[in-house]
Amino acid sequence: MSDERRQNRAVVKEDERVLVYIDRRRSKVVRAGKGEYGTDKGYIRLEDIVGLEYGSAVRTSTGKEARVMRPLLIDYLMRGFRRATQVIYPKDLGFIVLLSGIGPGSRVLEAGVGTGFLTATLAHFVGDEGHVYGYEVREEFAKVARKNLELAGLSHRVTIKVRDVREGVDERGLDAAFLDLPDPWGVLSVLREALTPTSPVVVFLPTTNQVSKLLQAVRAGKYGVDIHVYEILMREFQPKPDALRPESFMVGHTGYIVFFRMI
Amino acid sequence: MSDERRQNRAVVKEDERVLVYIDRRRSKVVRAGKGEYGTDKGYIRLEDIVGLEYGSAVRTSTGKEARVMRPLLIDYLMRGFRRATQVIYPKDLGFIVLLSGIGPGSRVLEAGVGTGFLTATLAHFVGDEGHVYGYEVREEFAKVARKNLELAGLSHRVTIKVRDVREGVDERGLDAAFLDLPDPWGVLSVLREALTPTSPVVVFLPTTNQVSKLLQAVRAGKYGVDIHVYEILMREFQPKPDALRPESFMVGHTGYIVFFRMI
Amino acid sequence: MSDERRQNRAVVKEDERVLVYIDRRRSKVVRAGKGEYGTDKGYIRLEDIVGLEYGSAVRTSTGKEARVMRPLLIDYLMRGFRRATQVIYPKDLGFIVLLSGIGPGSRVLEAGVGTGFLTATLAHFVGDEGHVYGYEVREEFAKVARKNLELAGLSHRVTIKVRDVREGVDERGLDAAFLDLPDPWGVLSVLREALTPTSPVVVFLPTTNQVSKLLQAVRAGKYGVDIHVYEILMREFQPKPDALRPESFMVGHTGYIVFFRMI
Amino acid sequence: MSDERRQNRAVVKEDERVLVYIDRRRSKVVRAGKGEYGTDKGYIRLEDIVGLEYGSAVRTSTGKEARVMRPLLIDYLMRGFRRATQVIYPKDLGFIVLLSGIGPGSRVLEAGVGTGFLTATLAHFVGDEGHVYGYEVREEFAKVARKNLELAGLSHRVTIKVRDVREGVDERGLDAAFLDLPDPWGVLSVLREALTPTSPVVVFLPTTNQVSKLLQAVRAGKYGVDIHVYEILMREFQPKPDALRPESFMVGHTGYIVFFRMI
Repeated sequence: MSDERRQNRAVVKEDERVLVYIDRRRSKVVRAGKGEYGTDKGYIRLEDIVGLEYGSAVRTSTGKEARVMRPLLIDYLMRGFRRATQVIYPKDLGFIVLLSGIGPGSRVLEAGVGTGFLTATLAHFVGDEGHVYGYEVREEFAKVARKNLELAGLSHRVTIKVRDVREGVDERGLDAAFLDLPDPWGVLSVLREALTPTSPVVVFLPTTNQVSKLLQAVRAGKYGVDIHVYEILMREFQPKPDALRPESFMVGHTGYIVFFRMI
Repeated sequence: MSDERRQNRAVVKEDERVLVYIDRRRSKVVRAGKGEYGTDKGYIRLEDIVGLEYGSAVRTSTGKEARVMRPLLIDYLMRGFRRATQVIYPKDLGFIVLLSGIGPGSRVLEAGVGTGFLTATLAHFVGDEGHVYGYEVREEFAKVARKNLELAGLSHRVTIKVRDVREGVDERGLDAAFLDLPDPWGVLSVLREALTPTSPVVVFLPTTNQVSKLLQAVRAGKYGVDIHVYEILMREFQPKPDALRPESFMVGHTGYIVFFRMI
Repeated sequence: MSDERRQNRAVVKEDERVLVYIDRRRSKVVRAGKGEYGTDKGYIRLEDIVGLEYGSAVRTSTGKEARVMRPLLIDYLMRGFRRATQVIYPKDLGFIVLLSGIGPGSRVLEAGVGTGFLTATLAHFVGDEGHVYGYEVREEFAKVARKNLELAGLSHRVTIKVRDVREGVDERGLDAAFLDLPDPWGVLSVLREALTPTSPVVVFLPTTNQVSKLLQAVRAGKYGVDIHVYEILMREFQPKPDALRPESFMVGHTGYIVFFRMI
Repeated sequence: MSDERRQNRAVVKEDERVLVYIDRRRSKVVRAGKGEYGTDKGYIRLEDIVGLEYGSAVRTSTGKEARVMRPLLIDYLMRGFRRATQVIYPKDLGFIVLLSGIGPGSRVLEAGVGTGFLTATLAHFVGDEGHVYGYEVREEFAKVARKNLELAGLSHRVTIKVRDVREGVDERGLDAAFLDLPDPWGVLSVLREALTPTSPVVVFLPTTNQVSKLLQAVRAGKYGVDIHVYEILMREFQPKPDALRPESFMVGHTGYIVFFRMI
């Protein structure tokens, strides 16, 4: 290992969140130092990874190699978070974030927090100077979302309120709004109060009927311009150099993404 | 307009970048105060928009309504940037950013800057505390990229070097690397020096042959784990509530996205 | 050339329909013996191809190689037929035919003949013992369809009636029905009279609203069981062995395919 | 029921193949008269359906309604056939048939019969005057395919030979060839002997590497013109009028379809 490479080294500390990666089906975000990560290919004692350099290989109890890695956002989401509801997948999360134009410092509204996948993603990108105001009517979902945000170290960037967003929100001058609700048309006038003019609104909707109804409401109430409806399909390939091909099964649908600028 | 709404108001200042939106085909990021924005539906004198509130409607010389809006990242990319090369589209940009886990404060490498679409996107998300080190062998592309970054107000977050990344990079301890090169396999050892262990590498490649060759090189040199190959398809719908349907034509392919964690 | 291969030889006769193929953009179904096939790569005198063996190479006036081939159904459709309306593409035609279960000897109804792409496809597969009864309200479309069927040598298997199918059809005991109409829900009771029980009905519809309305009508009137809605996407690749990749643009949408068994 | 409708009536005869349809997951092609069709929603005694009109509703032992229908080709394939290998799905079968231009009277070659899905489809469309010559190296697959063809009443249109097609075929002057083999490049010279000039060849291949290798071989040996590579994606929707949306999961990949005209 070269000198430069050595400078990049860092070691796993007690209580740090770490991705233990055996293979794509056996990998998990764990807390270094406590308990075990058990799989059908053997277990790893989590005290054994404390003090290891990131990137180190360790062995499970049955001798299978595992890697100790820094968790990325996607690892927290897909290999760490608990799920209590239907979630928004990475294929949609990335596009939603890009569309919305949010970034470090943005203050945003989310209605329909659910399990918190979008919440965590927004919190990740707004940074410590931004903030996410999340509304969720069901206490049990808010609880799961809070746990997930805690796991990802993002809690301080999020305020979750257990309230029906249709009754109004406390915030004003927000930069963007994200809705994952069955009836987003009932929230448009609330959004108009909360957002700065021309702020983006992004709505995630599973059925074509809901998309039609939302488009109708946006037009009828003259709420938006630059209206778009998108659908994202993601295909994963088997990463074999000599037998490259898409996976046999894929996610065929999660939801449609409606975007407009609030006026 | 309510009191709260009024507080959200802001006005267009001289020299500010503004999105003038007539319809989805006639909209552009312009500089307030100078010259005109001309279309086949008439022109708008850009001194006339100075002092207007964001969200205001103005009229073109032929009486067509236009909106004055704050540009989002996607507006800069699709309605402002000049193109000198094949670009990476928003459907891929969003997913690439999400996969990579970068965010406020990240220091990242980009090789193959081209027109700067990905550069600007990375710069947007790393914020003022992060930085993008972009390598590009062709001076004429670097020039276009710099202009585009200037337009989007992101220049201070980016250092573009007109150099062949295969000859090595100056940076160390970077958080992620993004490659949009025809022969990324030649850069793997350079990346290993520059990245912290387990950092993500994201490579954008147009052909299946290139994907196979890269996967081969990653395996042969034991450069990566958690290797994935993705393809993103985006369909846009005609946003008509009573005649909802996808557009007749869509982008069928841009490139495959290869992801792995550098070890 | 071997003896066996020689036995397979056949020569182009006067007046026969022939595919002249220069490249994928310059290829056409022509009548041997009359006139010229002209392209920007030179022309071919069609009397010169009479007497040639199928598969022969000829030269255009500028020296470019062309092949003389037997036209397939898809050549008639895509390289021979005139288009007067939006047509149903091969990606959908193949699936529609497969779903419907029609084959040699089938007697079928088509409503909304249009340009005759589906008509010709059905006529091709039902053979000389089957028949296609096509209803089309607009005389000008019926005329184009008849010309196209004539070109493909399929006229004798088709009866086109310039009539509104909603007013009833003359046929009884049919094996399948195909609808390419904006308001197929108005035809369901007519179909019930014309089809044998449990015959398949296949409907082609561009918008989600139409699909919803048709499904509603089928349920309300208890017209069908085994109801399915499909969408077919076709991607074409650039057939380069060393740079294999999908084409940059593709057809993103033509229509949804609704299938059910009439009861 | 009207008089015309009555004329269309036909009754289920002893030993006839019948589709018993309870719902989309509980439906099967059975032989009328013998045994039972058992499901988790009760069973149906198959002697009870003899003499019923097609389209009749019957009840399972637990009172669930079922329909007696004439099986279509797709019912035989998806609700009747036994599977011994990876099969070619309807989305691909329809397009393959359409591309190939086969129809009533065609004489075709199939190499790699497998479970017989494509074989049955080809046999269906070539009719009693056409014929399918199927080559399959593994006796156990040939056996399954024969059983499946028997079920669909198509055996008399097919000759299956348990032989390696690379060693040559007996037939000459064939109209089309279909290959579902891992190494189709080894068969090209055999095909050239068996096909009439300019006949279509359709090859089904799972990986991009195989597609590249085949394209290379076709070019190197000057075997083909009008070369195309396709991929078909099919999405099924939940057929709910008020909640129309694609199914959550779909088949992401089966194989690429390579087409060319043999010269």
